[in-house]
Amino acid sequence: MDKNSSDENQEQKEQVVNPWEVSAKGKIDYEKLIEKFGCQRLDPSIIDRVARLTGRPPHVFLRRGVFFAHRDFHEILDAYERGEKFYLYTGRGPSSEALHLGHLVPFMFTKYLQDAFKVPLVIQLTDDEKCMWKNLTVEESQRLARENAKDIIACGFDISKTFIFSDFDYVGGSFYKNMVKIAKCVTYNKVVGIFGFTGEDHIGKVSFPPVQAAPSFPSSFPHLFTGKDNLRCLIPCAIDQDPYFRMTRDVAPRLGYHKPALIESLFFPALQGETGKMSASDPNSAIYVTDSGKDIKNKINKYAFSGGQDSVENHRKYGANLEVDIPVKYLGFFLEDDAELEHIRTEYGAGRMLTGEVKKRLTEILTEMVERHRRARAAVTDEMVDAFMAVRPLPNMFD
Amino acid sequence: MDKNSSDENQEQKEQVVNPWEVSAKGKIDYEKLIEKFGCQRLDPSIIDRVARLTGRPPHVFLRRGVFFAHRDFHEILDAYERGEKFYLYTGRGPSSEALHLGHLVPFMFTKYLQDAFKVPLVIQLTDDEKCMWKNLTVEESQRLARENAKDIIACGFDISKTFIFSDFDYVGGSFYKNMVKIAKCVTYNKVVGIFGFTGEDHIGKVSFPPVQAAPSFPSSFPHLFTGKDNLRCLIPCAIDQDPYFRMTRDVAPRLGYHKPALIESLFFPALQGETGKMSASDPNSAIYVTDSGKDIKNKINKYAFSGGQDSVENHRKYGANLEVDIPVKYLGFFLEDDAELEHIRTEYGAGRMLTGEVKKRLTEILTEMVERHRRARAAVTDEMVDAFMAVRPLPNMFD
Repeated sequence: MDKNSSDENQEQKEQVVNPWEVSAKGKIDYEKLIEKFGCQRLDPSIIDRVARLTGRPPHVFLRRGVFFAHRDFHEILDAYERGEKFYLYTGRGPSSEALHLGHLVPFMFTKYLQDAFKVPLVIQLTDDEKCMWKNLTVEESQRLARENAKDIIACGFDISKTFIFSDFDYVGGSFYKNMVKIAKCVTYNKVVGIFGFTGEDHIGKVSFPPVQAAPSFPSSFPHLFTGKDNLRCLIPCAIDQDPYFRMTRDVAPRLGYHKPALIESLFFPALQGETGKMSASDPNSAIYVTDSGKDIKNKINKYAFSGGQDSVENHRKYGANLEVDIPVKYLGFFLEDDAELEHIRTEYGAGRMLTGEVKKRLTEILTEMVERHRRARAAVTDEMVDAFMAVRPLPNMFD
Repeated sequence: MDKNSSDENQEQKEQVVNPWEVSAKGKIDYEKLIEKFGCQRLDPSIIDRVARLTGRPPHVFLRRGVFFAHRDFHEILDAYERGEKFYLYTGRGPSSEALHLGHLVPFMFTKYLQDAFKVPLVIQLTDDEKCMWKNLTVEESQRLARENAKDIIACGFDISKTFIFSDFDYVGGSFYKNMVKIAKCVTYNKVVGIFGFTGEDHIGKVSFPPVQAAPSFPSSFPHLFTGKDNLRCLIPCAIDQDPYFRMTRDVAPRLGYHKPALIESLFFPALQGETGKMSASDPNSAIYVTDSGKDIKNKINKYAFSGGQDSVENHRKYGANLEVDIPVKYLGFFLEDDAELEHIRTEYGAGRMLTGEVKKRLTEILTEMVERHRRARAAVTDEMVDAFMAVRPLPNMFD
């Protein structure tokens, strides 16, 4: 083990963030994460620039710091300003039937980016990854991939600019060639340093990073980007995916490609409090897009960690602790009205608004949002899934 | 490191046999190899049984012990006797433009098996492997794969029963699904034990064994074997490929497949003597299918290691040492007439025949064989290569 690895192990006792585990003793220290990963904070000047270049107000996830870190995003903007286009790449590991709100965050943001910049988007469903990590059968992973594709499509992506693919269906040809080219550039010691694999891990795990790296290079998609090897790629994702793309960015220049740029989000907190990502094994830790209005109300009232005081009297006296209050954090993601959010924060923080009132407002907002999603998903037919996943050119993708 | 690995290391100082290296201090000890790998010797009763079941005399490579070891070949014969068919799988790593005689050995034998048992055959060209191990570009590996396919086709395979594929073209779909299923069953420690990878090896190497394993399972070829998941597979190969298939056989029952059976050959010796496989880096160590009659004559006269004595006088007195004599060994591969071979061995061994005479006879035989191959190869058009490599059903493959 080299020095870096053992430093990393030291730190991992405090805070572990990788694609398969997010945990910390207290809250995730995002500043430390930025420093450790070597990415940059997304500062207000970049956000202003996005607004200026796209002629739209910045998305609430930008204004509120949900997407808070990046790698080379300014280069994407420089190129865009010169009139060059780029493409977006995001993805999902289909490990569960129903998505929760945290799963929607990158897709909501990616839709905004697609609309604002008018660029094509590839969405990778890593059914092979989940088959290997969660020990699902191939068939079950593929079924989940299709189910998840429906939720993704329900987020409103433009079919004339969007290609969704499952690895089990799509790996091969130019994509496989890029996997091999990438794999040639990365030693086993390197992936151990980045991902923490051990000798007892199966070789499917060791083989997977190039699969997630390949979509960062336009030549993996000959039906979309033939003759466009110079096209830049922007990846919106949660910051736990950063290790894959650190590896990809190391490799890119050796293969003659641009390094993919990244724009990275915080983790969406669990109802029980902000110590990591939500746990798929505890259905009460998250609000799912399949939850009824009653479920949502119950979960918020029963499980959402409150920063309010233990009695109305104390609450009026001391006010709520907004730093730990989950309803306020959730409102920060999904209540678009800045003025109303500020009002709630002020009143609740001063103790003039009670926890119950904040939870009621959050319940309204999430119920409306989940119902809207459910209606949109119900309208997604199998034919639409086939259409989004068809291997095809997208002649109007840059319009 | 477990006990096995360190035993292996001890032994490797004496004799190294793996898919990328064959070396020994003296001659390869095949008995030791059989014991170490855990395969069986091909005994005369199995060879008699092959003759009986196929109604043909056994191939010279069987009679002379060129194919000398096996795994579960008797199970293939049992099944065949019950009226069940099987399929053949062999392959080549396309690392050089021209094949030498040693490269032809498995293909000549595979053609005999195809004709004798009337069974389908898949031939894998591992252009991905050579791209990774020999650091060739993707394009160069693919070009070599096509060139080598012409030499393979020139061996006379039946197009109605033969599918040739390059990994770069074919990996994907059901084949990729099997790669993932196989990879899930093999730990990194396991491949280190089998193949001796180190942490400084790139992960492409670690990812490759499932690619070579996948063709052992019929479901990797849906256009050929849909609904035939129970079909057995027989792999003719040189014994250095055994590690891949030991791994494959470990995995097979966990995936619900038969273990592939193997029939394994000695290494074709270098002109300079029998200490391993031929070296691609020394063109004078082997006779290539591109060599002219003059080249062949020169190479045999100049480089073929002789067991004859240093003077005619001594030769007449002591006779030739047939154990080390390369011309006699080569005749053992390619002189089909048993009586003539026996005559040469007796006369040469007794000193009544001189080295020059033996070399002259070998030159005749190899020149004729190489010229026949060259004529056959010249008749292989690009259209024929496309036809053999077309992803297609083979409706008459069991006729």
